Amino acid sequence: MDKIPILRMGRFLLVTIQVDLYDRLALTLEADLIQAVQKHNARGVLIDISAVSIVDSFMGRIIGNIASMSKILDAETVVVGMQPAVAITLIELGLPLKGVHTALDMEKGMDLLRSMMDTTDNDEDEDAIADDFITE
Amino acid sequence: MDKIPILRMGRFLLVTIQVDLYDRLALTLEADLIQAVQKHNARGVLIDISAVSIVDSFMGRIIGNIASMSKILDAETVVVGMQPAVAITLIELGLPLKGVHTALDMEKGMDLLRSMMDTTDNDEDEDAIADDFITE
Repeated sequence: MDKIPILRMGRFLLVTIQVDLYDRLALTLEADLIQAVQKHNARGVLIDISAVSIVDSFMGRIIGNIASMSKILDAETVVVGMQPAVAITLIELGLPLKGVHTALDMEKGMDLLRSMMDTTDNDEDEDAIADDFITE
Repeated sequence: MDKIPILRMGRFLLVTIQVDLYDRLALTLEADLIQAVQKHNARGVLIDISAVSIVDSFMGRIIGNIASMSKILDAETVVVGMQPAVAITLIELGLPLKGVHTALDMEKGMDLLRSMMDTTDNDEDEDAIADDFITE
């Protein structure tokens, strides 16, 4: 199986990483995910890494890349289910996953994404109100 | 990685199958899933097999088992994302996946589960109304 499936749930995309991300698989995932964000007009990407017990700098970089690319397309990335050992390794490797939000589990991750969307939507509403005000 | 992660979303559980289900992995998945159904009081199990391109009688049986076990614990199982080739193979193998609901993708699967829950809940409501009626 040479592809990691991307599941769509409303305006969120969900990816579960269960296998070692070797080069080609990681690049395919990056490309597929960014295309899916654009195609489905997604606002959030959830990456579940609860099955990942060993992390290296390559995987850390891939996750960081996905987050940065999604951000440009206006989608936030949340990594969920990180095992304590993985968190320890990431910090020891000097990879604090900047720009990536994290949550303890899938449900908390979705809540986080929803709260971020609400904030953005409110901002937009405020802008809309401001616009109306100017028009008047 | 010797475990397939089970993700909880409200009262549904989600499993994405990305690797070949050999004996031990399949049995672990069965056991974990049934325990999760009981622990989280889940009403539905979604199994995404969009990454599965080859299916054999063993995998067909495992999915059937999970559905039957979940059913006893009052949870419905929906298999989503089946590739056309897999559907062809299953029928040719004589495995029509009885007792397993299917849906084209994750979103349709969740809609199906929700509609099944609504039906059950309505039945319960009707029972409740009937009880009220008797009480009066």
